[in-house]
Amino acid sequence: MQAVNAEIIAIGDELLYGQIMDTNSHWISQQLDAVGVRVVRKTTVGDNRIDILTAFAEASTRTDLVLITGGLGPTQDDLTKPLLAEYFGCEIVEVPEAVEAVSAYFKRRGREMTPLNILQGHLPTCCTYVPNEVGTAPGMWFEGKGAYWMSMPGVPYEMKKLVNDFVLPKLAEIFELPVIYHKLIKTAGIGESWLADLIKDWENALPVHIRLAYLPSLGHVKLRLTAFGNDKEQLCEEVAAQIKALLPQIDKYVYGYDEETLETALGKLLKNAGKTIALAESCSGGYVSHLITTVPGSSDYFQGAVVPYHNAFKERILGVKVETLTTHGAVSEETVAEMATGVRELFGANYGLASSGIAGPDGGTADKPVGTVWIACAGPEGVETRKLQLTQDRMLNIQLTGVAVLNLFRICFHPSNK
Amino acid sequence: MQAVNAEIIAIGDELLYGQIMDTNSHWISQQLDAVGVRVVRKTTVGDNRIDILTAFAEASTRTDLVLITGGLGPTQDDLTKPLLAEYFGCEIVEVPEAVEAVSAYFKRRGREMTPLNILQGHLPTCCTYVPNEVGTAPGMWFEGKGAYWMSMPGVPYEMKKLVNDFVLPKLAEIFELPVIYHKLIKTAGIGESWLADLIKDWENALPVHIRLAYLPSLGHVKLRLTAFGNDKEQLCEEVAAQIKALLPQIDKYVYGYDEETLETALGKLLKNAGKTIALAESCSGGYVSHLITTVPGSSDYFQGAVVPYHNAFKERILGVKVETLTTHGAVSEETVAEMATGVRELFGANYGLASSGIAGPDGGTADKPVGTVWIACAGPEGVETRKLQLTQDRMLNIQLTGVAVLNLFRICFHPSNK
Repeated sequence: MQAVNAEIIAIGDELLYGQIMDTNSHWISQQLDAVGVRVVRKTTVGDNRIDILTAFAEASTRTDLVLITGGLGPTQDDLTKPLLAEYFGCEIVEVPEAVEAVSAYFKRRGREMTPLNILQGHLPTCCTYVPNEVGTAPGMWFEGKGAYWMSMPGVPYEMKKLVNDFVLPKLAEIFELPVIYHKLIKTAGIGESWLADLIKDWENALPVHIRLAYLPSLGHVKLRLTAFGNDKEQLCEEVAAQIKALLPQIDKYVYGYDEETLETALGKLLKNAGKTIALAESCSGGYVSHLITTVPGSSDYFQGAVVPYHNAFKERILGVKVETLTTHGAVSEETVAEMATGVRELFGANYGLASSGIAGPDGGTADKPVGTVWIACAGPEGVETRKLQLTQDRMLNIQLTGVAVLNLFRICFHPSNK
Repeated sequence: MQAVNAEIIAIGDELLYGQIMDTNSHWISQQLDAVGVRVVRKTTVGDNRIDILTAFAEASTRTDLVLITGGLGPTQDDLTKPLLAEYFGCEIVEVPEAVEAVSAYFKRRGREMTPLNILQGHLPTCCTYVPNEVGTAPGMWFEGKGAYWMSMPGVPYEMKKLVNDFVLPKLAEIFELPVIYHKLIKTAGIGESWLADLIKDWENALPVHIRLAYLPSLGHVKLRLTAFGNDKEQLCEEVAAQIKALLPQIDKYVYGYDEETLETALGKLLKNAGKTIALAESCSGGYVSHLITTVPGSSDYFQGAVVPYHNAFKERILGVKVETLTTHGAVSEETVAEMATGVRELFGANYGLASSGIAGPDGGTADKPVGTVWIACAGPEGVETRKLQLTQDRMLNIQLTGVAVLNLFRICFHPSNK
């Protein structure tokens, strides 16, 4: 086993001037951490020759692995490729395979290639060409100056694909990495400190080689168990035993593990039961429908959605009663329940989910301030409703409503989760 | 006038291991950029003596100003304060005023101070104590080793208050700051290299003090013009003149400037014209509706949406003809045109937008492979349609469809953008 240190270098003026947030370095950190590679430094430099070359030279003295993002576009301000060639002392030449890949990329998109794009297939002779299947700038792998180097485009999904498909397998091949086993337990419907309080005895009894972290995000808390050792299988078993001991205490908040999301969990429940769902989204404006349809195969259980952004459509398309709207208002338990029932009928679905609320920043009243949201789930057993009192922030309110609606479905589907 | 360069150093293992995203550096960049200080490097190091001292030494050689965040907590793993004392060669002593401030902070919160907290009021003799009114770790200002230095806690709102209340006024006092003016031109519907090719003569003729950068993101390219000089008003005028010269070449791709997005641009067009819109989203699954409704005030022009995820609903809710569906299929110009017309009628809107396609990963055929998408906009002048040939990636296809649909609206609204 070998301690492997890494540095991440992000290149681009836009990162220094605050125009783009560098989310790449954060994501790469997480991936390297998961395989036991220690990131010891992150460096961001602009589109400037001296700064970039200095960053390369400094990185080579302190790390085994240098991951570089950005500065690979076809335009004049992109310097990473020529400077890597200069740093490693080699020429840039046409790589027919790389030019062919860029050309194929454009062909697939039905677009013409420009002379600048052809140049993206020209690479330093001292690097290994790493195909980028989802973009035009190839990955480049270098070995030298005391380290391994990977240069990747700054576009997040292109970079992520190169890390997953090439860098991580390559690291496993080159280094004998320590064994680290992670398991994520995903919860919704309970806050971090409540959860911590609920499981503190279990947490305090964890062995030293198994660490627990609370990773809260919008409306969710993830529990990450990290086990260190030599034997993956054994770590796996130990973590499974710990989770088995934990579950009875938090069962009803757990919607899945690892990569599972509330929307994939919903899909699994519906698919396994051969049931279907439809949505009526007022304040969430299509967001829940979007989440559900990002899941491959969702057309098996997702029938459709209506976003009735004005009362007339709640009435006309979903059949909400005029009296309900006039007596209780659009943001009320009664209206949201009729929306859920109505959309369930409209689409002939087994379940109907609905939201209605004041997302803000305007539209609040003393009685129903910004952040007041009603959600409902209509199913074979009847209608389940919830009132949420959220924030002053429109985007946050939409996202938190989305999480709450998806979580309400779990409860509506399995009333024992109530 | 003086060019002032700055480096931001973020300290903390949690930043390297991907447990926390460093949003501080991004925010500081934006503030410095706005006052004409150029951030030339960002560095992140862990809670490690050698790494931190190396970062200090490197920063002092290349910048006039070093802003340090993090590593100021009361526990043993927080090293920033002792290492700053070591680096500047001075002792740490009790500063009664600082101890008093920490004590007052705890009193206000109704909590007891621990001995560790008292130590937070002990500071290097070579620094100027900068009170932190919203936390326990004081700010520290140093002058020496060829630069000005500010050390601040990593808690975002504490750091922000110190930057706003102390750092920015201090910089204005010390330096005669240069003027930097940025302008972003937002385009959609054209790739980076095409755009570069289209405007290369204009780009090559730019004066040296105005720089151009291409910032591509999903389906968009932003052009950033950065002008350096002494007189903001003059730079503003010069950039405006450059844009005026550029626009005739790229007019139809430009949807806005600076903070504008495709969805805010759509809102502006509709609001100013007193018109409304409705959506029929099949393959985009509610994503466009979500984008539009994230904009505050969108209820003024957004009537609603239908996500008809199966043919029966395209027919029953939107009135797409059975013959159209059987003859041409759901993913066809004919169907998407009828969806757009149908949803426009259903909601009584001035414009109807529609998408229908194969998002993937399944459902593709030889004839209509994954990534085949048809989009349409029905308006008072008729129906505009487009065929898109996108990728193999479901999420990407949804996002790219979203951008294309919003961009098609611009063309449909202003046929001269065709």
